[in-house]
Amino acid sequence: MRDIVRAGILGASGYTGADLVRLLATHTGVSINLMTANSHAGKPMAEVYPHLGGLNLPDLIKWEDADWSDLDVVFCGLPHGTTQEIIATLPDKVKVVDLSADFRLRNPDTYAEWYGHEHRAPHLQKEAVYGLSELNREPIHKARLVACPGCYPTATLLALVPLAQKQVILPDDLIVDAKSGVTGAGRAVKEATLFSEVAEGMHPYSVSRHRHSPEIEQEVGNAFRQEVNVNFTPHLVPMNRGELVTCYVKMAQGTDVATLRSTLAERYKDEPFVRVLPEGATPATRHVRGSNFCLIGVFADRIPGRAIVIATIDNLVKGSSGQAIQNMNLMFGLPETMGLEQQPLFP
Amino acid sequence: MRDIVRAGILGASGYTGADLVRLLATHTGVSINLMTANSHAGKPMAEVYPHLGGLNLPDLIKWEDADWSDLDVVFCGLPHGTTQEIIATLPDKVKVVDLSADFRLRNPDTYAEWYGHEHRAPHLQKEAVYGLSELNREPIHKARLVACPGCYPTATLLALVPLAQKQVILPDDLIVDAKSGVTGAGRAVKEATLFSEVAEGMHPYSVSRHRHSPEIEQEVGNAFRQEVNVNFTPHLVPMNRGELVTCYVKMAQGTDVATLRSTLAERYKDEPFVRVLPEGATPATRHVRGSNFCLIGVFADRIPGRAIVIATIDNLVKGSSGQAIQNMNLMFGLPETMGLEQQPLFP
Amino acid sequence: MRDIVRAGILGASGYTGADLVRLLATHTGVSINLMTANSHAGKPMAEVYPHLGGLNLPDLIKWEDADWSDLDVVFCGLPHGTTQEIIATLPDKVKVVDLSADFRLRNPDTYAEWYGHEHRAPHLQKEAVYGLSELNREPIHKARLVACPGCYPTATLLALVPLAQKQVILPDDLIVDAKSGVTGAGRAVKEATLFSEVAEGMHPYSVSRHRHSPEIEQEVGNAFRQEVNVNFTPHLVPMNRGELVTCYVKMAQGTDVATLRSTLAERYKDEPFVRVLPEGATPATRHVRGSNFCLIGVFADRIPGRAIVIATIDNLVKGSSGQAIQNMNLMFGLPETMGLEQQPLFP
Amino acid sequence: MRDIVRAGILGASGYTGADLVRLLATHTGVSINLMTANSHAGKPMAEVYPHLGGLNLPDLIKWEDADWSDLDVVFCGLPHGTTQEIIATLPDKVKVVDLSADFRLRNPDTYAEWYGHEHRAPHLQKEAVYGLSELNREPIHKARLVACPGCYPTATLLALVPLAQKQVILPDDLIVDAKSGVTGAGRAVKEATLFSEVAEGMHPYSVSRHRHSPEIEQEVGNAFRQEVNVNFTPHLVPMNRGELVTCYVKMAQGTDVATLRSTLAERYKDEPFVRVLPEGATPATRHVRGSNFCLIGVFADRIPGRAIVIATIDNLVKGSSGQAIQNMNLMFGLPETMGLEQQPLFP
Repeated sequence: MRDIVRAGILGASGYTGADLVRLLATHTGVSINLMTANSHAGKPMAEVYPHLGGLNLPDLIKWEDADWSDLDVVFCGLPHGTTQEIIATLPDKVKVVDLSADFRLRNPDTYAEWYGHEHRAPHLQKEAVYGLSELNREPIHKARLVACPGCYPTATLLALVPLAQKQVILPDDLIVDAKSGVTGAGRAVKEATLFSEVAEGMHPYSVSRHRHSPEIEQEVGNAFRQEVNVNFTPHLVPMNRGELVTCYVKMAQGTDVATLRSTLAERYKDEPFVRVLPEGATPATRHVRGSNFCLIGVFADRIPGRAIVIATIDNLVKGSSGQAIQNMNLMFGLPETMGLEQQPLFP
Repeated sequence: MRDIVRAGILGASGYTGADLVRLLATHTGVSINLMTANSHAGKPMAEVYPHLGGLNLPDLIKWEDADWSDLDVVFCGLPHGTTQEIIATLPDKVKVVDLSADFRLRNPDTYAEWYGHEHRAPHLQKEAVYGLSELNREPIHKARLVACPGCYPTATLLALVPLAQKQVILPDDLIVDAKSGVTGAGRAVKEATLFSEVAEGMHPYSVSRHRHSPEIEQEVGNAFRQEVNVNFTPHLVPMNRGELVTCYVKMAQGTDVATLRSTLAERYKDEPFVRVLPEGATPATRHVRGSNFCLIGVFADRIPGRAIVIATIDNLVKGSSGQAIQNMNLMFGLPETMGLEQQPLFP
Repeated sequence: MRDIVRAGILGASGYTGADLVRLLATHTGVSINLMTANSHAGKPMAEVYPHLGGLNLPDLIKWEDADWSDLDVVFCGLPHGTTQEIIATLPDKVKVVDLSADFRLRNPDTYAEWYGHEHRAPHLQKEAVYGLSELNREPIHKARLVACPGCYPTATLLALVPLAQKQVILPDDLIVDAKSGVTGAGRAVKEATLFSEVAEGMHPYSVSRHRHSPEIEQEVGNAFRQEVNVNFTPHLVPMNRGELVTCYVKMAQGTDVATLRSTLAERYKDEPFVRVLPEGATPATRHVRGSNFCLIGVFADRIPGRAIVIATIDNLVKGSSGQAIQNMNLMFGLPETMGLEQQPLFP
Repeated sequence: MRDIVRAGILGASGYTGADLVRLLATHTGVSINLMTANSHAGKPMAEVYPHLGGLNLPDLIKWEDADWSDLDVVFCGLPHGTTQEIIATLPDKVKVVDLSADFRLRNPDTYAEWYGHEHRAPHLQKEAVYGLSELNREPIHKARLVACPGCYPTATLLALVPLAQKQVILPDDLIVDAKSGVTGAGRAVKEATLFSEVAEGMHPYSVSRHRHSPEIEQEVGNAFRQEVNVNFTPHLVPMNRGELVTCYVKMAQGTDVATLRSTLAERYKDEPFVRVLPEGATPATRHVRGSNFCLIGVFADRIPGRAIVIATIDNLVKGSSGQAIQNMNLMFGLPETMGLEQQPLFP
């Protein structure tokens, strides 16, 4: 009989932490042995997230009070910046699935430029593996520290990387118009995400300044084997969950929309969570809500030589907690879909 | 090894049918062998509900074309009225979990008064068992035909029946102010449920005329062992899922709010899906979204001698498909929580 | 030619302040000469509320820096508690339309009980006039200080006071189940009103503890000429604007639903902003959105001797800024509908 | 004293008709003398749109029963296709403000290609003037028949035409990623616009096949004085009103983002309804809700040589009824802002 993986969740009071708990509750190979949330230490999780009140969970503690000795893995949902230092203190035998941005960027200068301070654990950065499960499966399998991608990069890279690798699209004029639900902003209290500031309206934000830009450029550049600039323009949409990227691409000489679609379909034909839609079907965020799925559609463009590739995920699942669990499954040799069998919740 | 229960879904193209499929997809003791939807016959379910596109499902057929021979149970999500005739044609060995209103009312005159025509299968009505799982477990266990309660009655009766049975509340002046999400109206195409007619607003509907009134009165009356009139006033709220009933009750002489709370807590202390909240905690629809849970809270009233009992469910799960599966589990001797382990989806 | 009334807005950075500006922008008898918002002093209003960027407005200042000499009236949208002291410092010639709760309760003990501190300007409390325009027109006309009602009391009292005054309903067992949009909570930054905590869900709040309870009881009691207890149970609904109260009442001996409806219809037949709906028509928040209207419907109850009276308003307009302007019009002898001619925004 | 313009509204039962009535109710130079809605003939408008119940309006009639003799202008909100024939029967002295797509496309072949049938009034097409008020003021002033632009073209053209005319952007690789609220789909009853199909989700639609594409290409082409292909990709967002276009453009040699911004600012500096935002300010649909405003922002792109121009309008106002009134004001020599002074409704 398989041993149960003993997991801790650091920073459990964010939406990401709550969704980890929701999904792990149905994972038969993992137990949640520790949960930290410094601002809520001493409380039961059900007080912070009443929807989880039916579960038997350890109370929230401060991370300084954690006993790492009986853990096999930690999911780390701490704020950017603090993560580095905490992870650096963990015993080597504890594997780490990091959901923050701290170990995504390989170039420390890029990190410093976009996050405003020097990286505090550059030695760990070197061993960190970029955790886009479908595109980096083998390295994740062997990794001790996996840096889960941002939500926008997850959708964008699933759409573009296979096309870039096969050179059926060109590296220039890549435009990614992204739309996200409000949970992407987390549970931190801000005027900008109050209900009445968001409902019944939408707007772009962080235009050309979003921190997922360098991450997208890094990975798309890797796929093209050259540096690229990518336009990445996110918009906030009045919904809780869901993310959709509309990618405007130039096709390589001699390729067409059908080539793009078949390239993606071939690449993902054995993947349990990525579905390339047939011609005419349209990705919609509601068709992945609450699940680990990614749907991708390819469309003709009225401008000759261009095409449109559209991908959608649930930002809290495939874009965060679900992919983290998928990576943990890989790291421990568990079936990749364990704990992620839930179908989308529609309506 | 346990045999797999072979299930059919009649009327699979409604939201109820889709949610049955979503939940049954994670039920390890049931297979979906047949799905009917006369208006969509010939199509794959994924065309009608793309969010279910990751599942391997039988195509939709007309119910007239169904082969009942290899089925153990049918879930019947047909419109009110048509259900009676179709169920009457099923072979005896097929058990029936009916989600329509056709077999809920014991008195055929009441049925005729509220549904506008004589009952078409009164003999089946006699054998039908009212399927409120927690309150009618033994009869459901032995039944061939279970009439699942309406969504509003489910929440209302879970809140009131134990209090009525223990006579800690009085049968007069019972007021139930109910609020529901829009999926309660189904997927039928109507101006009244267009997005722009519902979003960013709310309103009461069917005031004193809603068809769940006689059902609530029948069951509350049974609990009190006398006829009762219940005020039932539903309101439509701009959300997909969720239902909350605010019940204004008169307490019996000598009882108080604490008595009411402890009566409910005692009644449900071993129930996996019903949670009575401690003093000060407030039921919220979002804490049950997508799950089979029911949360109940009891509150003081400023009017002496009165109290407020508030219950919430997901109308499509505990109010419909989830309770149907719970009943099927009971009918086949399966663990009652099978296929219903999903935690609420919040946010 | 009529002189222009010179107005100041204290606490202009709340939603109430913004809606005052929106409405006054179309009022041809008023100019906005001063706007204070201590936390945003020095900024243009358009920075705090970009939707008002097309208007020519004075910059925001601290109230301590205000020059009262060229003002005829101030609208006071300050937080509860601070209002009393600031208003006490204003020159006598400046009329005051107060939108806070500070001068609504006539009994200083009740104020202290519900607001947690002694009243700081009891002499002003004595001269304050309760500003429910339709029910208190003459005193408002002559007042220097008008205390505008809370949003919930506005809807509730418009529905119940005429019935109580005419004694067609009884003073016992009055139950008010209220539903409100999220702007009722203001723009203050709180986890509970984040989009993802509110959208796609609903819940009751402050059950039996809401501060509008004593205000409703005071005014309903006045109408009945006796003390009353009123059940008041508010619920938060995922919409920006709108409020609906479902009032469950006992009818006096010899009256019926038609009597109630005609009593209200007669009382409001000349009112420009209150409409009593004919039998069968249902009040809906979306039919008053953005406007100063109040719609009232009367419905039969299944419980003999009871009836249901339902009223709806836009909480920010008739429930706050609109009624404030209506009161100012009365105080200055202007046509009562000036600045309030906007029709509801639907959808 | 100015004569009152006597107006009729054809097809008054759509959202466009209702918003015309809402706005005209505050227009002091127009009276509504006739309203047609064939499917609702005989009803009062307040039955179809209860939010307009406070107005004194003519009952709805069939258009065949209309008496044109005492009308100066008709607003025509009929479905595409039927409009042509009805307008062709109107007496010459009645001016026409058409809100349908029937007279927008100058090339009858393009019309036939996109609308599936030959144009039925090509002679009228010749005299029709394209009604983008700010960009075509003089011809509109003199026109008898004005074809109001589609909602998407309105926002797109206000953003791009001045840049194209001044040649500060290039005609190739023009990409318009558009987002719209659900009222854009009208009040017609369709499964796709049911609340539960739209809320808490978003998706693209009509990718590369939307009928506003040829209209945008026609007018952008005119501005560039050459044929262009424009990528136009609309998305449906869960909100009632509001539209935002994110336009990805290539800058001409020697220009930069500041040039684009100043070109637009200069072009619109005297316009009452178009505001070019300063650097750093972001257009948001909620800042124009219910109003005739258009907000435009210009942003740097991470791809050298490219820029992002973002415009937002309320699709029912500047994108439809508001612009129609603005055009009528121009056609009758009235002040252009009459009836359109309402400030945006936020929240």
